[in-house]
Amino acid sequence: MILQLHKSISTQEAANLAVELKAFHITTNDNHILITSSGMKEVPVGLENKIEQYWVFNSDMQLSAKSFLPQKRQICIGDKIIGGNSMQTLLIGGPCSVESEEQIRQSAELIMSLGLTTLRGGCYKPRTSPYSFQGLGYDGLMLLVKMKEEYGLTIITEAKDATHIEEVIEHSDIIQIGAKAMYDQGILHACSKTTKPVLIKRGFGSTLQEFVQAAEFVLSGGNENVILCERGIRTFETGTRFTLDLCGVAWLQHHTNLPVILDPSHALGKTYGIPSLARACTAMGIDGLLIETHPNPKVAKSDASQQLTHEEFTQMYHSLKPVAEAVGYKII
Amino acid sequence: MILQLHKSISTQEAANLAVELKAFHITTNDNHILITSSGMKEVPVGLENKIEQYWVFNSDMQLSAKSFLPQKRQICIGDKIIGGNSMQTLLIGGPCSVESEEQIRQSAELIMSLGLTTLRGGCYKPRTSPYSFQGLGYDGLMLLVKMKEEYGLTIITEAKDATHIEEVIEHSDIIQIGAKAMYDQGILHACSKTTKPVLIKRGFGSTLQEFVQAAEFVLSGGNENVILCERGIRTFETGTRFTLDLCGVAWLQHHTNLPVILDPSHALGKTYGIPSLARACTAMGIDGLLIETHPNPKVAKSDASQQLTHEEFTQMYHSLKPVAEAVGYKII
Amino acid sequence: MILQLHKSISTQEAANLAVELKAFHITTNDNHILITSSGMKEVPVGLENKIEQYWVFNSDMQLSAKSFLPQKRQICIGDKIIGGNSMQTLLIGGPCSVESEEQIRQSAELIMSLGLTTLRGGCYKPRTSPYSFQGLGYDGLMLLVKMKEEYGLTIITEAKDATHIEEVIEHSDIIQIGAKAMYDQGILHACSKTTKPVLIKRGFGSTLQEFVQAAEFVLSGGNENVILCERGIRTFETGTRFTLDLCGVAWLQHHTNLPVILDPSHALGKTYGIPSLARACTAMGIDGLLIETHPNPKVAKSDASQQLTHEEFTQMYHSLKPVAEAVGYKII
Amino acid sequence: MILQLHKSISTQEAANLAVELKAFHITTNDNHILITSSGMKEVPVGLENKIEQYWVFNSDMQLSAKSFLPQKRQICIGDKIIGGNSMQTLLIGGPCSVESEEQIRQSAELIMSLGLTTLRGGCYKPRTSPYSFQGLGYDGLMLLVKMKEEYGLTIITEAKDATHIEEVIEHSDIIQIGAKAMYDQGILHACSKTTKPVLIKRGFGSTLQEFVQAAEFVLSGGNENVILCERGIRTFETGTRFTLDLCGVAWLQHHTNLPVILDPSHALGKTYGIPSLARACTAMGIDGLLIETHPNPKVAKSDASQQLTHEEFTQMYHSLKPVAEAVGYKII
Repeated sequence: MILQLHKSISTQEAANLAVELKAFHITTNDNHILITSSGMKEVPVGLENKIEQYWVFNSDMQLSAKSFLPQKRQICIGDKIIGGNSMQTLLIGGPCSVESEEQIRQSAELIMSLGLTTLRGGCYKPRTSPYSFQGLGYDGLMLLVKMKEEYGLTIITEAKDATHIEEVIEHSDIIQIGAKAMYDQGILHACSKTTKPVLIKRGFGSTLQEFVQAAEFVLSGGNENVILCERGIRTFETGTRFTLDLCGVAWLQHHTNLPVILDPSHALGKTYGIPSLARACTAMGIDGLLIETHPNPKVAKSDASQQLTHEEFTQMYHSLKPVAEAVGYKII
Repeated sequence: MILQLHKSISTQEAANLAVELKAFHITTNDNHILITSSGMKEVPVGLENKIEQYWVFNSDMQLSAKSFLPQKRQICIGDKIIGGNSMQTLLIGGPCSVESEEQIRQSAELIMSLGLTTLRGGCYKPRTSPYSFQGLGYDGLMLLVKMKEEYGLTIITEAKDATHIEEVIEHSDIIQIGAKAMYDQGILHACSKTTKPVLIKRGFGSTLQEFVQAAEFVLSGGNENVILCERGIRTFETGTRFTLDLCGVAWLQHHTNLPVILDPSHALGKTYGIPSLARACTAMGIDGLLIETHPNPKVAKSDASQQLTHEEFTQMYHSLKPVAEAVGYKII
Repeated sequence: MILQLHKSISTQEAANLAVELKAFHITTNDNHILITSSGMKEVPVGLENKIEQYWVFNSDMQLSAKSFLPQKRQICIGDKIIGGNSMQTLLIGGPCSVESEEQIRQSAELIMSLGLTTLRGGCYKPRTSPYSFQGLGYDGLMLLVKMKEEYGLTIITEAKDATHIEEVIEHSDIIQIGAKAMYDQGILHACSKTTKPVLIKRGFGSTLQEFVQAAEFVLSGGNENVILCERGIRTFETGTRFTLDLCGVAWLQHHTNLPVILDPSHALGKTYGIPSLARACTAMGIDGLLIETHPNPKVAKSDASQQLTHEEFTQMYHSLKPVAEAVGYKII
Repeated sequence: MILQLHKSISTQEAANLAVELKAFHITTNDNHILITSSGMKEVPVGLENKIEQYWVFNSDMQLSAKSFLPQKRQICIGDKIIGGNSMQTLLIGGPCSVESEEQIRQSAELIMSLGLTTLRGGCYKPRTSPYSFQGLGYDGLMLLVKMKEEYGLTIITEAKDATHIEEVIEHSDIIQIGAKAMYDQGILHACSKTTKPVLIKRGFGSTLQEFVQAAEFVLSGGNENVILCERGIRTFETGTRFTLDLCGVAWLQHHTNLPVILDPSHALGKTYGIPSLARACTAMGIDGLLIETHPNPKVAKSDASQQLTHEEFTQMYHSLKPVAEAVGYKII
C-alpha cells in the first residue's frame, strides 16, 4: 500500500510513522510517501486523518505501477530527456568491452559523427568463466570518463557485483545493472541512494514481475530515475542466443510507468538480424536502444559475433529514423 | 543432399534412381530433383554424369535452405502475391472461431471495407479440454465457403488432425496447420500432395530447426507453396500467454527461403499490446500478419481476451501502413 | 461438473439429459455419469431429484481428479495389474524401433529371460525430419504381434497420427500416444472408444494441466483405462536431451487418480545415467518404467545413443528391485 | 589447459610462469598447477621440460572435470566426510529463515534428536520484493552460531551479495551461495580465498555448463572444497514452483568430480511431494540433501508452503534410510 501523507505532516512525524508501519519513506514533489507491503489493504486505524491519498495493490509492483502514477516517468540523460511526453528513442552505441583507448575513442567518434550522445562500454565484465577476458575494470572506467570529458558524451557502464558499485556510481552517467546482477541487493541498495539514472537489465531467467520488483528496490529507496531494459530471456530455442521478449515489452508498457530500453544485440547474439530487430523494437515506441558496435568486431575480446561494424551501425541508424517517425518518435 | 538431374534423364529413370537412393523425387521448373538424407555428403559413385548440380547440407533443412534457393519463394494467395520480390505484407483478419453466419458475415464485411482480401476463421478447434467449445466443424467450413463465394475473399482455416484434412484441403484457399498439429505427419503428408498454399504454425514447444523440418515434409512431397507462421513459444514467463519469438523470425529470414507470417494475437493473448506488436512485426519486413478480430469479443466462444474489436482492428490497420512503408513494404 | 444420476434413471433418459446439458455421458459400475464443463458450478434447477451425487471442480481436470475418485485407478495389462493397491512397477523394455524380426526376437527373449512380461517397440515413428528412418509401419506391428503370439508377451506401440490409429488399437495391448501426438484429437477420440489401456505421453511443451486434460478426452469418451507417462520436458538446458520432471510426477500423484509410468530414456537421451534415473523414478512409488534397450545399440536406426545394451538393462533391472522394496513396491 | 609443473619448479618460478601465461596458479598436494583458458590446446614452446603432466579441454570446465581428476572430491563437514569413497548422504535440515532464538533452537534440537549433525537457516534472504521479510541478517547469523556452540552442530547459511560475504565466511561452517547469486564474482572471489566448504546453488536460469564454471571461479582461486547444489530450474511448468533437474544431476555425476547435494524443497515449493522427491534424490547416490523444516510452518515468515513440520521431517528421515541402503549409501 502506498500512503501519501498530508502536507502538514512534518518530516520527523513521517519518519516515525514509517518505523511504526515498517514502511519505506520517500519524498516526491514535497510529498511524504510511505510504502508498505502490498499485503496491507486498508489504512491503519487512527491514521485516516493524516492521509491525503492512498493506493492499494494486488502485488508488490507499487511505485512502478500505472495505477499509482499513470504517466510514464521522465528521465534526464545529460541534457536529453526520455520518457514523459518526450517521444524520443535514445540510441546508445559502443563496444561490448572497453579494450583500449584507441578502440573506445573510435567508438566515441562514431557516436559524435552521427549526432548521437551516449556511449556504452563494459569495464567490469560478468563472464561465466574465470578463464575469459574479465574487462579492464577501473582502468576501463577511466577511459570512458576520458571520452566523456573530451567529447562531451554521456556514458553508461555496468556493475557486476557490490564490490565496485561505488566506483560506477561516481563516474558513470547511467548506472547499468547487468542481467546476472538483477537480484543483487548490494547493488540495488547502493543505486537507491543516488539520483543518477539506473538502467536495470532483466535477468534472462527472471519473470516480468520479478524484473519490476527489482526496480521497486531502487524506487523505494528514494531514486526515481529507473529505466527497465529487456535483453532477451533464456528459452529452449538455441538457434539464437536468447529470445527477445517483445510481448514482455507490451506488458511493461501497459502495466508500469517506467521507461523501457531494448538490447537486441545480446538477445540475438549474431549481427545478421540486429538491424531488423532494432527496427521492430523502435516500432513499439520505446525509450531507447542499446546496440553493440566495435571498430573491428573480428578481434573483439568479448561477444565478437554480435557487435556491428561502424558501417553497419551507421546504416542501421539511418534505417531507424523513418520507423521511429512512423510511430511518432524521434531517434536521439 | 539435393541432386538435380540432367534434363536428359527421363521421368522413369529419375523415379528409379529415387528408389535406389531412398530419396524423395520432385519436379521443379521441369527439373528432376532428388532429396536424400543430409547424412549423404558425396555424389554416389556412378551417378556423376547424370547430375546437373548438387547441394550438400549439414542439417535436414534442405529444400527450405537459402543455400539451395537463395531468393525467397513467391506464393500466390488468390490473385495476390507474397514473397519473392513482392514486398507485400498480407493482413489476414477474422475471428478465432466461426460461430454463426451473422458473425462471420460481419467479419467478412470488415475485411472488404478495408480493401483487404483474406478472411480467417477456425472451424475444427484444437482445444486442450474436451469440455470447451470444439468449433462448428464442417458446418463452419461451409459458412466460410459461403463468404468466399459471396464476397470474393480468400479464406484460411485450420486442420487439427488427419481425420478431416481432406475437407480443409478441398475448401480452404490456404491450409493452416495448427501449432499443436505441427508434427502431424498425416496432415503434412496430405498437404504435400496438393498445390494449395500451406501455412505451418510453429509448435509452441518446437525449435526453429524442427519447425523448418516440418516444412520439409511438405516440400519433399512436392508442394512448393509453404509459408511459416511464428505465433509465440512457451517460456517461463506467464504474464503473457506465449513469447513471440522475433529473434526466431530473424533466424528464419536469414536461413530459409520461405515466406514468414506472424500471429501476435496468440502470442500475447491480450488485446492491449497486439497493435503495438503488429507494428513491430511489420517493421521486420514480413510477408503477412494473422490477427484475430471479432464483432463482439466479449461473447466470443473461444479466445475472448485476445480478439480485437472491429474498431481496434481498423485503427491498427491504419497504423501499420506507415510502418510498412518505412521498410519498403505495402500492407495488402 | 460431474453428475451421478439416480439408479432409477434409464439409459435413454440419461442420454437425453446429456444432450440437454451438452454433457458427456459414460457408465461406470452401472452408474450413469454426466460430465459438463467445469464452468457449471450448481446442479441445474429441476434436476435436483434425479442426482445421486455431484462434484464441482475449479478446472477441467474432472474424471481424473482425486476429488472425484480418491483411490488410484487399477488397470489390467495382460494378466498383470498396476495401480489400485497393487504396489507394482511394470518394467517395460525393448528397442526404440522395430527393425527386423531377428532384432525384436532378441529383445523379446531378453524380456522373457528376466521374468518380465511387456515388450515395447516403435513401428510408426514420429520423426522430426522426412529424411530419417520412419519405422516399418504395419510390417513392424506384425512383427510385434508375432512376438506376442510366440512368447505370450504383452506389447505396446505408438500411434503417431490418426491415419493408422485403428491398426494400433486392434493389435497392440497398450496403445501409446506419443508426446508429439498428445493433442491429436483424432487419436484421443479413437482411444476413448476402446477399452484397451491407453498410455498418454506428456508433450514436451505441455503443462501438467494440459497433459491431464488429454486424459480427460479419453475418460469422457468412456475408456477408463488411462495411464500417464512423463518422459521429459523441453527446457533451456541442452546438456541433456530433455528434463525429466519428477516435481511434475509428485504433482500428478497428488492431484490425479491415474497410474503414472516414467520414461527416463527419452528424457536423458544418453545411456550413462538411465539406470540411476530409473532408480530415482522407482523410489517415488510409480506404476511403471519404459526403458529402451537394443541388442546392438551402435547400429540402431533411431535413438542410438539412449538405448541400453541387454547387459546394461539386466544390471539395471537387478538394481531396481531393492529400491522398489525400500518403498514397498515390486518390479514386475 | 591445466599444466602440472615438475616438482623441481620453485614457487616463485611457478608464479612467474602464471603471469606469463595469464594463468591461475594453485597448489594441490604440493604440486604447482597452472590453469589457462581452455582455448590453449598445446603446451607453449619452451615449457615442455618444465611440465610433469598436462590436460587439454574442450570447455572451461577444467579443474572440475572427471578427465582431470577422475575420483569424486572428498570434503570434510565438521567431523563428517562426504564425497570421495564415503558413500554418505548428508541430511541438512532447518528453517528457511532464522526468525528467533526459540525457533532455531527447536530446529537444532530436532537435528540433534535424529542423530544428525548439520543445521541450515537463512539470515540474509535474497527476496524478490523489497516489501517482504528480508531476514535477521547478522543477528540471525549470531543465533546460528549460538546453536553451533551449544549443540556442537555444523551450520550452513547463505550470502546474498558481496557486502556481507566476509561475515558468512567467518562464522558459517559451509558457505552457501544462493541461486540468485551464482554469478556474483564478488562472492565467488571471496570464497576462493578460504578453505571452508562452499556450496554453490545452481541459478534457476543457469545451464549446467555455467553452473560448473561458477565452481571453477572458486577452484581456480585455490579453494578445493566446492559442492554443487541442484535446487530446481525455471521452466514453462507453473504447477510446481520449479523443476528439479535430475537429468542434470546424472550429467554432473558423469562429467564432474564435485560432490552433489540436492534441495527438493525449493524445487517443488509444496510439502506434499518433498519426502517422495527426497527418496528419488537419495536413490541416485548423492552426497547430501537440503530440506526445509520449521517448528510451525503456518507462521513462517518466508516460504511457508514448502517447510515440513518436524514430524514430517522425522518420518521422511526414516523413510530415506532403506532407500539409501538400497544403493549402498548411508544417511548421516
